[in-house]
Amino acid sequence: MPISANTNARAEEVIARCKLLATFSEDPGSTRRTFLSPPMRDCHREITKWLAAAGADITVDAAGNLRALYPAAHSDAPRLLLGSHLDTVPNAGAYDGILGVVIAVALLESLEKRRLPFAIEVVAFSEEEGVRFGFPFIGSRALVGSLDEELLNRQDPDGITVRAAIEMFSLNPADISRAKLSDDTLAYLEFHIEQGPVLESIGRPLGAVDAIVAQTRMEFVFLGRANHAGTTPMHLRYDAIAAAAEWIVGVEHTAQLHPGLVATVGQIHAKPGATNVIAAEARVTLDVRHKSDDILGRAADTLIRMAHEIAARRGLSLRQNVLLNQRAVAMDPFLVEQIQEAIRSTGCQPHRMTSGAGHDAMILADKVPSAMIFLRSPGGISHDPAESVLTEDVAKALECGLHLLDQLANSSELQKRMSRA
Amino acid sequence: MPISANTNARAEEVIARCKLLATFSEDPGSTRRTFLSPPMRDCHREITKWLAAAGADITVDAAGNLRALYPAAHSDAPRLLLGSHLDTVPNAGAYDGILGVVIAVALLESLEKRRLPFAIEVVAFSEEEGVRFGFPFIGSRALVGSLDEELLNRQDPDGITVRAAIEMFSLNPADISRAKLSDDTLAYLEFHIEQGPVLESIGRPLGAVDAIVAQTRMEFVFLGRANHAGTTPMHLRYDAIAAAAEWIVGVEHTAQLHPGLVATVGQIHAKPGATNVIAAEARVTLDVRHKSDDILGRAADTLIRMAHEIAARRGLSLRQNVLLNQRAVAMDPFLVEQIQEAIRSTGCQPHRMTSGAGHDAMILADKVPSAMIFLRSPGGISHDPAESVLTEDVAKALECGLHLLDQLANSSELQKRMSRA
Repeated sequence: MPISANTNARAEEVIARCKLLATFSEDPGSTRRTFLSPPMRDCHREITKWLAAAGADITVDAAGNLRALYPAAHSDAPRLLLGSHLDTVPNAGAYDGILGVVIAVALLESLEKRRLPFAIEVVAFSEEEGVRFGFPFIGSRALVGSLDEELLNRQDPDGITVRAAIEMFSLNPADISRAKLSDDTLAYLEFHIEQGPVLESIGRPLGAVDAIVAQTRMEFVFLGRANHAGTTPMHLRYDAIAAAAEWIVGVEHTAQLHPGLVATVGQIHAKPGATNVIAAEARVTLDVRHKSDDILGRAADTLIRMAHEIAARRGLSLRQNVLLNQRAVAMDPFLVEQIQEAIRSTGCQPHRMTSGAGHDAMILADKVPSAMIFLRSPGGISHDPAESVLTEDVAKALECGLHLLDQLANSSELQKRMSRA
Repeated sequence: MPISANTNARAEEVIARCKLLATFSEDPGSTRRTFLSPPMRDCHREITKWLAAAGADITVDAAGNLRALYPAAHSDAPRLLLGSHLDTVPNAGAYDGILGVVIAVALLESLEKRRLPFAIEVVAFSEEEGVRFGFPFIGSRALVGSLDEELLNRQDPDGITVRAAIEMFSLNPADISRAKLSDDTLAYLEFHIEQGPVLESIGRPLGAVDAIVAQTRMEFVFLGRANHAGTTPMHLRYDAIAAAAEWIVGVEHTAQLHPGLVATVGQIHAKPGATNVIAAEARVTLDVRHKSDDILGRAADTLIRMAHEIAARRGLSLRQNVLLNQRAVAMDPFLVEQIQEAIRSTGCQPHRMTSGAGHDAMILADKVPSAMIFLRSPGGISHDPAESVLTEDVAKALECGLHLLDQLANSSELQKRMSRA
C-alpha cells in the first residue's frame, strides 16, 4: 500500500514537532528536560494545543503526566492507552520518548474526530530516564501505584524531594493515588525509537517488541599489588589491569557465544594510575542482558566464576557487588501479533525483537497488557544530539498505528476484553 | 667471612640515620622532600655533622648537591665518587636514594681516617625523582654539565623556576658550571635499594648492576563508538574498552615471551564511562623496558603493530604518541667485575642484574665509569612508607663497600686510570 501524500506531510509535521519540543530545555544550546523542570511547562502547553484541537480532554495528574482522553463512540466504553515519556537525558536527541507522544497525538488527529469502540488516552509521562533523582519511571510508576512514600522522599542533587518538585510545579502529591490506571484500561501501546542498530542492519523500518530483556548490573574490583613497572619481572607481578583485561576479553567472548546475550564493560578505573606503576586495583562494571531470566542468570554466573578463576590464578583478590537485578518483562502476545499484522498492512516485513533497554511499557505491563512498536534508529544512535529518525519510517509508523487501531476496533479478542473491562 | 659486631652496629646506625632523615619532610606525617625544599636544609645539616666528624670537607654546589671530599694519601691524587640522592617522592619510604648516601658516609667512618691512594668524594644529589619540576636528575645533570638554560627555566606547579628555587636556597645559579665533575674523577659508585623483587626471589642480599635498561613510554587511544549497552548486539559494536583489553592481554603475553622484557599498562581511562554505555574511547599507557635497545625497539614495534591490527579488525581507529624513548646505559665492565668480587668477599653469591629504573649512575655514566650495587628490597616494595631494608643486608653492603675500596686501592687497572687522570 503506497503512503499517501497526506501521511507523508503528517510525518514531516511529527518530526518538526519533536524538533520544536527539543528547544524546551534546561540547558542553553542542548536538550535536557528532567522531571517537572520549567521547560516541561512549555512542552505541556504546546502538546495541549495539538491535543485539544484533535478533540481530547486534557489533564495533568499529580505525578506530572499529561493525560488526554479522546472519547469513544459510547460513553461507558473502556480505554486504550497510547504514550511515551517527555523527559530527556542531558545533551539529548529530539526523539527518545517524545516521538512516541507526538505519534500518539498525530494518530488522534488522523482519526479526524472519528469515534472507535474504545476511548484513547494519550499519556505523556513526566519521567522515564532517571536523571534527576537517580531512579527512573516516576511517571509510569504513578499509573501502576508503585510511586510510594520512599520514592517520593528521594532527593535530587540540590536536596529537593520528588514530593517538593511536584509541589513546585503547582501539583498536589496527595492526589497521586488518583493518577492510577482506571479499571477499564484495555491495553498500553508505545511507539519508540529503537535506540539500537538492529532494524537498520536488516533494512526494516518497524519492529514488534515481544519482550523487554532481563538485566543484571554488577561491579567487580580486582585487587593486586602496586609495583615498579621497570623493576618487577613479569612473573612476580600482581597486575590488576592485566587481570581485568583478561576478564573483559572473556566477557565479550562469552556474550558472542550466546545468541541474544549482550554483555558490556562500560567503566574501568585503575589505581594508582601511573604510567610506570603496575596497577594495584582495577574497578570494572558489568551490564549483561537477555530476554530469558534463566539464560541471563547462567551467563552472569559464568562471568562471575571466570572473574574469580582469573583472580585466583594470578594471586589477586576480587570483590563483587550486584547493582541491579531486573527480570525480563514479556509483552502481551495478542498485542504483539496485532502489531505484526499492522506492520504487514503497511507493506513492510515486521521484525519481532526484544528491547534491550527499559521502557515505560515494562512498568505498565505489570497491570495491563502492553506492547511496543520500534522505529528504526539511523546509525543506532540515541542519547545524543545526532539521534534521528527517517520521515518515511514515521509515515510507516503512522500507517501502522491507524491499521492497529482499526484491527483492535474490529477484534473479537478485544471485544471479549472490552466486555470484561 | 662472619660479619663483625662492629659492622652490625654500624648497619643499625645506617638504618636509624635513614629513619631520622625521613622525618625531614614537607608533609606532616609522611615523607616528601623535593628539590631544595626547606627540609633539605635539615638533611644537609645532619649529614654535614656526620661527614665532618669522619674527616671530610663539605660544600654545597650551586645545584644544591652536598659534596664532601675525604682526602687521599697524596694531595694530587684523583678522586672516586660515592653517592646517591636525597630527594624523595611524595609518601616515600626512608631508603630510596638516602640509603646510598648514608652508606657512603658510613664507609668514610669505617676508614677511620685511613688514607687511600685516591680521594673519596661523597655526593648527595639534590634531585633525582623529578617530582617538583616534572623532569628528573637535576643534581646529577649539574655534574655532567647538562643542566642547561632551558631546564633552569622550567617551572614547578607554583610557577617557581629551577633557577629561582636555587636562589631561594641562598645558592647562585651562575655557579652551576662549577658543579661539574673534576677532571681527575676515576669512577662513580652508587649503593641503592633494588626497588624490585628479584634479589629477594633468589635469596641474595646484593646485586651488581651491569646496565640500566632502555625504556619506551607511549600512549594509545582506541577510538570506537559509544552505544547503548542493551540495544546494540555484540556483532554491531565498536567497543573501545574491549579492544584495549584484547591489546593489554597481548602486551602481557609478548613480554612473557621475551626474557628480560617488562611491559606495563599502568593507566587506562575510558569514555563516556557509564555502566550501560559501550565505551567510545579507551586511553592506555605503555611502559616497556629491556637492557638491549634492539630488543626493546623490536618489542615496541610488535606492540604497536598489534594495537593497529586489533583496532583495524574491530573497525576502530587508533592514535599513538611516544612519551619517552631512553636508550640503555651500560655500567663500566671493570667496576661490575670488581663489585662482584667484593660481594663474593662478604661470603655471598653476587647476582649480576639490570636496573629496571633510572638512577643518577645513568647520568654520570655519560662522563665517568659508573656502576651500582643493589640491596635486596623486602617485598620489592618502594615509593611507599612500607619500603624497607634488612639490617644484615646493610651490613653486607658495608662489608662489600670496604672490600671494594681496598680492591680498587690495589688494582693495577685503577693504577693505570689514576696515572691518566
